[in-house]
Amino acid sequence: MVRSIEHCSLDEALKTLLDEFPTATLKKHNIRARDALGFVLAADVYSRKNVPHYTASAVDGYAVMARATAGATPATPVLLESGKFSWVNTGMPVEGYDSVVMVEDTSTEHEYPADSSEIGRLKISRSLTQGDNIRAVGEDVMNGQLIAGRGDRVTCALVSLMLCAGVEEVSARARPRTLFIPTGNEIVSGEEWLSDEYTPAGVVVDSNSLYAESIFASWGYELDVAPVLPDEPGIIKGAVRRAAGEYDLVLVSAGSAKGTRDHSAGILSELGKMLFRYVRMKPGRPAMAANIGGTPVIVSPGFPMSCAVTLWSLAYPVLKRLSGEKISSDYISEAIASIETVEALFMTQHSSPQGIAEWLRVKCASVGGNMFFWPLSAGASVLWSLAEADGIVHLPEKTLECPKGTAASVRLVKRVDFSKRLLFQGSDDPAVGLLVPIIREMGADFAIRTVGSMGGLAALGRDEAHLAAAHLLDVSDGTYNTNYIKQFANGKNWRRRLIFYRAQGIMTAPRNPKGIRGFADLASGEAVFENRQPGAGTRVLLDYMLRENGLSPSDIRGYDRISITHMEAANKVASGVADAALGIASAASALGLHFIPIAREPYEFVFSEDFAEHPAAAALGKAIESEEWRDAVARMGGYELP
Amino acid sequence: MVRSIEHCSLDEALKTLLDEFPTATLKKHNIRARDALGFVLAADVYSRKNVPHYTASAVDGYAVMARATAGATPATPVLLESGKFSWVNTGMPVEGYDSVVMVEDTSTEHEYPADSSEIGRLKISRSLTQGDNIRAVGEDVMNGQLIAGRGDRVTCALVSLMLCAGVEEVSARARPRTLFIPTGNEIVSGEEWLSDEYTPAGVVVDSNSLYAESIFASWGYELDVAPVLPDEPGIIKGAVRRAAGEYDLVLVSAGSAKGTRDHSAGILSELGKMLFRYVRMKPGRPAMAANIGGTPVIVSPGFPMSCAVTLWSLAYPVLKRLSGEKISSDYISEAIASIETVEALFMTQHSSPQGIAEWLRVKCASVGGNMFFWPLSAGASVLWSLAEADGIVHLPEKTLECPKGTAASVRLVKRVDFSKRLLFQGSDDPAVGLLVPIIREMGADFAIRTVGSMGGLAALGRDEAHLAAAHLLDVSDGTYNTNYIKQFANGKNWRRRLIFYRAQGIMTAPRNPKGIRGFADLASGEAVFENRQPGAGTRVLLDYMLRENGLSPSDIRGYDRISITHMEAANKVASGVADAALGIASAASALGLHFIPIAREPYEFVFSEDFAEHPAAAALGKAIESEEWRDAVARMGGYELP
Repeated sequence: MVRSIEHCSLDEALKTLLDEFPTATLKKHNIRARDALGFVLAADVYSRKNVPHYTASAVDGYAVMARATAGATPATPVLLESGKFSWVNTGMPVEGYDSVVMVEDTSTEHEYPADSSEIGRLKISRSLTQGDNIRAVGEDVMNGQLIAGRGDRVTCALVSLMLCAGVEEVSARARPRTLFIPTGNEIVSGEEWLSDEYTPAGVVVDSNSLYAESIFASWGYELDVAPVLPDEPGIIKGAVRRAAGEYDLVLVSAGSAKGTRDHSAGILSELGKMLFRYVRMKPGRPAMAANIGGTPVIVSPGFPMSCAVTLWSLAYPVLKRLSGEKISSDYISEAIASIETVEALFMTQHSSPQGIAEWLRVKCASVGGNMFFWPLSAGASVLWSLAEADGIVHLPEKTLECPKGTAASVRLVKRVDFSKRLLFQGSDDPAVGLLVPIIREMGADFAIRTVGSMGGLAALGRDEAHLAAAHLLDVSDGTYNTNYIKQFANGKNWRRRLIFYRAQGIMTAPRNPKGIRGFADLASGEAVFENRQPGAGTRVLLDYMLRENGLSPSDIRGYDRISITHMEAANKVASGVADAALGIASAASALGLHFIPIAREPYEFVFSEDFAEHPAAAALGKAIESEEWRDAVARMGGYELP
Repeated sequence: MVRSIEHCSLDEALKTLLDEFPTATLKKHNIRARDALGFVLAADVYSRKNVPHYTASAVDGYAVMARATAGATPATPVLLESGKFSWVNTGMPVEGYDSVVMVEDTSTEHEYPADSSEIGRLKISRSLTQGDNIRAVGEDVMNGQLIAGRGDRVTCALVSLMLCAGVEEVSARARPRTLFIPTGNEIVSGEEWLSDEYTPAGVVVDSNSLYAESIFASWGYELDVAPVLPDEPGIIKGAVRRAAGEYDLVLVSAGSAKGTRDHSAGILSELGKMLFRYVRMKPGRPAMAANIGGTPVIVSPGFPMSCAVTLWSLAYPVLKRLSGEKISSDYISEAIASIETVEALFMTQHSSPQGIAEWLRVKCASVGGNMFFWPLSAGASVLWSLAEADGIVHLPEKTLECPKGTAASVRLVKRVDFSKRLLFQGSDDPAVGLLVPIIREMGADFAIRTVGSMGGLAALGRDEAHLAAAHLLDVSDGTYNTNYIKQFANGKNWRRRLIFYRAQGIMTAPRNPKGIRGFADLASGEAVFENRQPGAGTRVLLDYMLRENGLSPSDIRGYDRISITHMEAANKVASGVADAALGIASAASALGLHFIPIAREPYEFVFSEDFAEHPAAAALGKAIESEEWRDAVARMGGYELP
């Protein structure tokens, strides 16, 4: 018995899978050609008619004999007697004549056109040759002509061409029947998840079934979803065996990592022929596949991104194989419905794990003539990153270090007008995020990278952002931003705009159970603090406050714990992971936290002097001044709008 | 009253239309978020839950306190007593500990893992910091976080993200209700067209409704189709008035060219506000639009390509506007479901009409490091060209002469592995076309340009084809191809392969009603001959035969009439447009023509010496030797296979 391969590359895994299922297996059946949109043809299609089936006029004009028009020009028109020509509309048959003169090249003695017998003589100002403005029989398609081949997927144009060509029925492959089996003791159905007010820790919603159903729909296929199965090998085994007998493809969403839930490999081996296990890609590494009684069975890891990647990279090409459709070398673009592939530059340094291909979900922006991209959260569990991504970057296995500026191909999945997208890099504030739908409604676009106040100014200085935002306190003179802007602008004439003042303070759990009143209490060692990243204005403020209070970072338990946004820090406090954090009032208020005000600080946008020329600048300006945004910010609390 | 604009550019037409309908008009309604795939959101969507909603392990391993692992390395592991750690699967809650050590970084005294109480002490070989391998609450999405904006179309990823985020319902725009009204006395329904054995001249099938229905389906919309209406202004007017009251968008497929069927403009003006008429594009020029009681009504010309272009360029953006979806500057790519835009070079010289934008349906091939494209038939009536096209080229209005080699952007609508596509240029033979599905089934591809024997050799010489085909008689020595190849190869070492011998002869109508026996009869002036294009081997043969028979071109009536393929010439004869043509036996036989054999000629493929290195060369070789192809060729008749 041949052993299945382990820890193979995706290419090897796919080859193994396709070699195991070398030909189309779905039933051929005859369907009405007009219903065939999206079906894969099982036989070549030939025209049954000539189109047009008669000699037709290609224009509105007069059917004539070409030789009667010899020498006609606007200066030397030819006159034809009644009976030597005949009016034809576009598409009308031309009989007894060999060409058609366009109406624009004629004039008549009497009123235009009605009936050629009434118009007297026809004056023609252009000389014709035989066949001019005539559509020959079969000009579009000829009887017997091959118009589509087996393995072609029927397009909109082909559906209507087949009708014209008199094709009533075609032989097509049945659509594949696929069953998706979600498993796991921790998994609850969508209905349960939505209906439960309180969901216990450890419970995860079965989102994979819904994603799979949706992406199958986008591929033009249906998907049956089984109820969630518990982690009982006997139950799963029975379900997979039955499914393999009934379906063309079986997908199992399972934990197949090294752990207590690791039943899948055993089940597949017992039921059939294991093909591969562990694919050198991230996410998706624990994927595996088997041939069970002639049916492909693919097991995807349970994390949403791992499952998605397994569907794109393994299930999709198998579906095409079962249908007899050609599998393009770029089938991934097809699977994710990519609309364009662009070359872009890493905005950040990136380390790719050795020997493992990576699937990055990225956002892109065009700044200073360069197209940049940056990966969103790489976690296999982070579905948001897929919903938010502009595109997917597939880093090959051999990739290791990608310094900032490394080029890679981004398969775009959203149609973005990059010329109208502003890239904002800078200090985090949830109010800025609320600008996005308003700006987008005006036809422009706004991408946010939260990199802290200093990170934003640095990016602006490197021409990697259209605008930055900062609230940087200079402790030497108590000013905000001015000195920092001077330093980063490096002689350039940057502009600034006050967006609002906002309240910063210490956030604690509701009702402040640890009785924190100020920074001294944070240094007691009792409370765990959640800090912000270096370069964040809020961290600058913290450091200043610590010095003012005669404290040092080492006095603060948790000084090295880092959240990137105010909401993230607030969430750490709200969920009890930390006892306190420094942050803005609106974040505390959003999560119902206790808030001890510390500072009122200006939050400013900073941009270069040619910013107003950007096609989206006006939309940003309008959004900032909009009632909608100002009202929303006011509702959040903790802001003073100028 | 403002007059509607006439003969405007597409940009002007679209602007007029969108300015008239500036905001989303479709009803907002609440739908289940899980059913929202493809719907356009009418309101921003915020997360209702933290995801995850508890502190979760990101790996399989042991939950521990980070400080207990201080200094651990493989060389200096740390030992933890039972009770100081707890096994966690990926996704399980982590409570009472602040980090997780991956199982790979541990070993146990007893058997792996079962229950931490049974395994004795845990040996840890990696030092952790707080939060390592832990997914914080809200790591994916935070409660209250904006996850999608109004105007966004719901994607597969968003559908499942909304489920995770506890979003049960969303406000979405209703799908637009659109009515398509085909009109024209000459138009018959698809059912009639398919059921009629004999269709009278002048009758055209209503293929536009089916195309519109299909492309609406591909956009995720439904389309109602009205019965075909006759050219009766009163009837059409009533139907449009009723439709404008009932639907969100009304499309009328009509003849609106200057002619007797020209009712549409009058009807629109009487019923509402005419917006524009005549758009400077080809096809699609007679398109027009109006606002009838607040409903957009778009009239497309009746030819299939004109109708298609009107749907893409005018109906699609209006649908997006009604839905409140952003209209990308490249909405055309979206409308035609383009999967990539590539720069390519005109394979031929092209003259674009002055001041009129053109929509070309093109095929592409990559040869000698250049991506080329060539327009398929440009006729507005030629639907085949759309079904066959790899992509669409939109030539702006200002384009005039495009010399061979001019670059243009091709919006690809098919996913072609160009590295595996052979470009064949040369002599026409229907048997060559039968290779295509066989080659495609092997995962390679084959594009055919029929340019005649000499055209093919010339293209090969310019490195614009992977292979050519010729049957060129050298009258000086009676050889075929040898001397021509020498001339065109220009010192290069070209290879040739005999594909078959084929019978050439004179084709006439069945039973040869004009009693044509040979070339002398063609010179009688009685019969109209259909010739082939200069450079075609068949024309070379004709010229030779004429000389042999002491005749000159001027003796042959129709010598200047040109068909590009054998089937086209045969079709001219079959449909009575010509009385005779020179062509191959298989073409005559396909159309049941009378055939007078004249010559048996070798038909050879010609290619450069490195041809075998092309990734598709092997597939071509196999196809030529396949039973399937050889049987098909034998069935056609008139061939001798080597």
